[in-house]
Amino acid sequence: MKEIKVGLVGISGYAGMELARLLARHPAMRLVCACSRAEAGKKLGDFYPFLRSVPGSDVEISVFDAETCAKACDVVFLGVPAGTAMKMAPDLLAHGAKVVDLSADFRIHDASIYEDWYKFTHCCREILPRAVYGLPELYAAEIARTSLVANPGCYPTSIILGLYAALKNNLIRTENIIIDSKSGASGAGRKAAVPTLFCEVSDNFKAYGLVSHRHTPEIEQELAAIAGYPIRIQFTPHLVPMSRGILSTIYTEITHPQKTLEEIQAIFCKTWSRSPWIRVLPIGELPQTKNTRGSMFCDIGLALDPRTRRLIIVSAIDNLCRGASGQALANANLMFGLPVDAGMENLCPLA
Amino acid sequence: MKEIKVGLVGISGYAGMELARLLARHPAMRLVCACSRAEAGKKLGDFYPFLRSVPGSDVEISVFDAETCAKACDVVFLGVPAGTAMKMAPDLLAHGAKVVDLSADFRIHDASIYEDWYKFTHCCREILPRAVYGLPELYAAEIARTSLVANPGCYPTSIILGLYAALKNNLIRTENIIIDSKSGASGAGRKAAVPTLFCEVSDNFKAYGLVSHRHTPEIEQELAAIAGYPIRIQFTPHLVPMSRGILSTIYTEITHPQKTLEEIQAIFCKTWSRSPWIRVLPIGELPQTKNTRGSMFCDIGLALDPRTRRLIIVSAIDNLCRGASGQALANANLMFGLPVDAGMENLCPLA
Amino acid sequence: MKEIKVGLVGISGYAGMELARLLARHPAMRLVCACSRAEAGKKLGDFYPFLRSVPGSDVEISVFDAETCAKACDVVFLGVPAGTAMKMAPDLLAHGAKVVDLSADFRIHDASIYEDWYKFTHCCREILPRAVYGLPELYAAEIARTSLVANPGCYPTSIILGLYAALKNNLIRTENIIIDSKSGASGAGRKAAVPTLFCEVSDNFKAYGLVSHRHTPEIEQELAAIAGYPIRIQFTPHLVPMSRGILSTIYTEITHPQKTLEEIQAIFCKTWSRSPWIRVLPIGELPQTKNTRGSMFCDIGLALDPRTRRLIIVSAIDNLCRGASGQALANANLMFGLPVDAGMENLCPLA
Amino acid sequence: MKEIKVGLVGISGYAGMELARLLARHPAMRLVCACSRAEAGKKLGDFYPFLRSVPGSDVEISVFDAETCAKACDVVFLGVPAGTAMKMAPDLLAHGAKVVDLSADFRIHDASIYEDWYKFTHCCREILPRAVYGLPELYAAEIARTSLVANPGCYPTSIILGLYAALKNNLIRTENIIIDSKSGASGAGRKAAVPTLFCEVSDNFKAYGLVSHRHTPEIEQELAAIAGYPIRIQFTPHLVPMSRGILSTIYTEITHPQKTLEEIQAIFCKTWSRSPWIRVLPIGELPQTKNTRGSMFCDIGLALDPRTRRLIIVSAIDNLCRGASGQALANANLMFGLPVDAGMENLCPLA
Repeated sequence: MKEIKVGLVGISGYAGMELARLLARHPAMRLVCACSRAEAGKKLGDFYPFLRSVPGSDVEISVFDAETCAKACDVVFLGVPAGTAMKMAPDLLAHGAKVVDLSADFRIHDASIYEDWYKFTHCCREILPRAVYGLPELYAAEIARTSLVANPGCYPTSIILGLYAALKNNLIRTENIIIDSKSGASGAGRKAAVPTLFCEVSDNFKAYGLVSHRHTPEIEQELAAIAGYPIRIQFTPHLVPMSRGILSTIYTEITHPQKTLEEIQAIFCKTWSRSPWIRVLPIGELPQTKNTRGSMFCDIGLALDPRTRRLIIVSAIDNLCRGASGQALANANLMFGLPVDAGMENLCPLA
Repeated sequence: MKEIKVGLVGISGYAGMELARLLARHPAMRLVCACSRAEAGKKLGDFYPFLRSVPGSDVEISVFDAETCAKACDVVFLGVPAGTAMKMAPDLLAHGAKVVDLSADFRIHDASIYEDWYKFTHCCREILPRAVYGLPELYAAEIARTSLVANPGCYPTSIILGLYAALKNNLIRTENIIIDSKSGASGAGRKAAVPTLFCEVSDNFKAYGLVSHRHTPEIEQELAAIAGYPIRIQFTPHLVPMSRGILSTIYTEITHPQKTLEEIQAIFCKTWSRSPWIRVLPIGELPQTKNTRGSMFCDIGLALDPRTRRLIIVSAIDNLCRGASGQALANANLMFGLPVDAGMENLCPLA
Repeated sequence: MKEIKVGLVGISGYAGMELARLLARHPAMRLVCACSRAEAGKKLGDFYPFLRSVPGSDVEISVFDAETCAKACDVVFLGVPAGTAMKMAPDLLAHGAKVVDLSADFRIHDASIYEDWYKFTHCCREILPRAVYGLPELYAAEIARTSLVANPGCYPTSIILGLYAALKNNLIRTENIIIDSKSGASGAGRKAAVPTLFCEVSDNFKAYGLVSHRHTPEIEQELAAIAGYPIRIQFTPHLVPMSRGILSTIYTEITHPQKTLEEIQAIFCKTWSRSPWIRVLPIGELPQTKNTRGSMFCDIGLALDPRTRRLIIVSAIDNLCRGASGQALANANLMFGLPVDAGMENLCPLA
Repeated sequence: MKEIKVGLVGISGYAGMELARLLARHPAMRLVCACSRAEAGKKLGDFYPFLRSVPGSDVEISVFDAETCAKACDVVFLGVPAGTAMKMAPDLLAHGAKVVDLSADFRIHDASIYEDWYKFTHCCREILPRAVYGLPELYAAEIARTSLVANPGCYPTSIILGLYAALKNNLIRTENIIIDSKSGASGAGRKAAVPTLFCEVSDNFKAYGLVSHRHTPEIEQELAAIAGYPIRIQFTPHLVPMSRGILSTIYTEITHPQKTLEEIQAIFCKTWSRSPWIRVLPIGELPQTKNTRGSMFCDIGLALDPRTRRLIIVSAIDNLCRGASGQALANANLMFGLPVDAGMENLCPLA
């Protein structure tokens, strides 16, 4: 297998750490370039002590330069904040590297919607049409053909995968979808800040970002693409005192009141029958985030309320692996014609 | 102040521990009787090491006998499972003790609804009409006059207090109320069981009891009493990797689309202006469970979605103090003509 | 009881929060002044949401000015970093306020030892002789007479109380005392920093500060004062993924090999018989930090190894209450002639 | 590569779960037999929801029968309690299976010492001489030749690896070795018990098993084997509110006071230069359990106290992977002539 040279820009966050973990065992990809202004000069293994003695740990951290990085790498993962990625991607592409952007900069097809929610100008509208939304189960063919993947957000991944079978098969009404999501603290990033200190998060639970979270338009865009017409959702995220994991509890109204839970579950199973990473649970079982930890699995559980005729869909993922870096790696695999799970074969959750 | 003699039946759970903690500082109540078959003969301070040297620690644990207990005590708190409390309460009442029952046995006015959800026969229907639902803010006068208080469930406390102002003031529609609640692990009790082991709960999040949780009819009964007509809700509980705390995220549809969030918040504030334990947060702030830990506070935050016209109410309590033992103590205070917060004056959260 | 007016300088840390919690219920002390440059202008209850509706929450945060503060207050608690407190204390004292300093600035009698370990110049040597080390069980009389208390460090409190009975009664050799301490994350303070983020601390354990922790000379000074001659110890702190609590495991060699554990435990009990906050556990029981949470208790357990003749002393405290703010309040009580536990009577742990 | 058929007896514990996780990706081993009386008839993936869709999940759980199991398997891992393993191993061996026993039954060469500490009779002394202590770095050759491996305990693994270089190179005195170890809650097993409930372990820290922990003779046996003469240690375990990980802080007295920390660290590095799983950290860095999570790494940090001339060795491992199942798998690899890290190549920690 020809070696694929990989760059990682932005190493200080949890997504960067997770990507380094996953690349360590990839049969074809090799990390050759890791960029961070603050940490330049160190070996990656000195900055990530967990990585010592593992492939990738000897890479010397350098200051990002688009041309140098693009020439050294076949693909570059951008683990930088929204607003920064859009400044880096065009030059990388121009110099011939493929790009997987983990930020939100290329997820929203309509730049004006992006600007409404993210509150700054999109400086890179011209390459926006080239970006493919990197959800492998939905867009594998498009991902394989593009050089710019917009890697999905963590919450949207859990929600879109949770709702896909229901929308695709017209099982639910598209009004009144209420999504109550809960995330571990790694979703808030690895920056020094009081609200994510251990003593603030531990033995505590809170909601945040009500009626205004930036993942809302991304979710609506993708649900609309599945349904074929616009959808407006209610989305509320919460912070759970755990490191990893997202669980979304999704309240929907069913279209066919006579459908049984068994029938609905069978349709979910059939829809995902060729997607080994989607595990539709048996009736009576519900997902737990720990059963997906460190893996690409999305576990989906279903309940149907005989009193209210609501179908409640519960989905769980690891926010860092499936919700960020593992999914980014799957996208890169597709971009290079590798099996989507290369490097992640039988990646068993660390329950 | 005349001393009030207190009994506690069922000491092995977290509610018993919490009651012992709160009684230690009560100016008028004194724990004189603590019952547990398994621990009989020990001093309470030997079973609860945290209690050593604190008033109550010298009480010797005894086997429950209704007559003995009733004669020794002015009021008895029942911290035993549903189904057991209904067998103890009649004899205690008959022998002259007042009873605060922390189980569900006397919460549901209609015994057949109780039996539908709890799956066993209610053996004590004759005293059910005497039972008052012990939510002090709503039923203080009735509590003061009764000898049998049905102490509310933890989830219902957070939900009823969260919705009261909205329902009372006709701010929301009563259809499509969706309640997504999250509780710390102490809510599952202190019995040996694999699913509540540290390694199972820690760094994990899950939903449970979908469409079937026993608190559902209790919530519906009390919301109906506020609204004046039957209400059907959707209620989903989740398990949070924390010890204490409940947060309920409540999705409602507003009745008057032109009402602003400022107006709604002002109505909430006015409704609760004489209830110091209810803290309606300023607009822009949301509750966190830790701000209520170990206290009687119920913190309520509000958000109004301009896109969907939904009012989202978020309420937080300590499930053991406000959601169980502290509320039980407040009820007992009312039953004896004491200030509702006797022994809990300025009980500041341990944030 | 005459009202005692209290000032708190440095509100942004966990010690400030804990002091506000404890003052809320104090029968004689009232918080009238809270200083913080960054938060000036806010109400204290807006900065500490847990404090809302509780006495103290209405105090407006102001910028510190020594004269203003001293004139408004009878006693001022300094919750500021080492190096800052020594600049504030002299002016406060000069303007007539008593001072309880929670920093290390006045703990070490020998300023040159302070400078060796803390790496900056002690700018306030002239008032150092007035400072009393604020461990109430050891120095109550001196505390009552001084206007400047140096409040002990958290680790030293757990260690000095753990070793006191053994040293005072000549039960152990003073060579080869090895102290392995473990602290919750609140000991690291409430400043934004990556190493104390939830995801860094959670499900993790580490040692830190080996052979160089600044509490070492403080511990040695006080142990020497008990023993009557210099003592050199080995002290290693560790970070536990919990919010509150310190547990110290102390390895000592016994002086009288024929002494039984029963005899040693009896001597510990006798030594502390008039100190209700010190709980010497029965043989066979060991302390747990949670049994002291939010309280002034120091729990002490003992084991004697028949194979090695070592006495292992295990002590546990709450690092924020007993190890900081509760002890500061006890010292202030003594300084004003109040019972040492005023405001903390029967303060039962929140286990 | 010829397929090696694997059996696992005792699936309900955390070691069984971890072994299933690791086997999922092994290139040569395949789980064909999983035994548990309580769960017989279920698919393994139904009992371990994390394992669904992963190799091994389709194995049907059966009741243990030595002959059946031995005939179906090339190697059997015993994940059963001490006292039970010794009853199973002889029959398995007699029917031709190799055995890796994760219990303590074959670790102690001297059966009378075993009986002193474990308090029951060793019923299988005759095969004890065939058992090899399965620490791959120390006994690879012997492990390769035996059919019965006694897999080391979790604490002993962290301690023996931590001390090996110091003892082997005569850097420390063998008197006064004090070992203060801390373990996550998975070390206590997956049985229903109140002391390991989430609410008991969370935000809490305690010592346990003082002067009597059963791992003591195992540690002493192996340290003596390295040193060449008997060694008596002081060993104290503690329970940390985390799932996985052990950190041991080891206090030793150096033999050559003139040796610098740099020299000592260099000797450690040289001793372990061919052992990629042992990571001797640079001076100034200390291990953290999370940097080893889910991996075979043992991280070792060193500090030398210039005041006391003590060398403090801090070692960290994952108690379930390196301290149990991963090590068991490494031993099985050696027993079948595979690379010691087969199936665990570049197994990067999930930090």
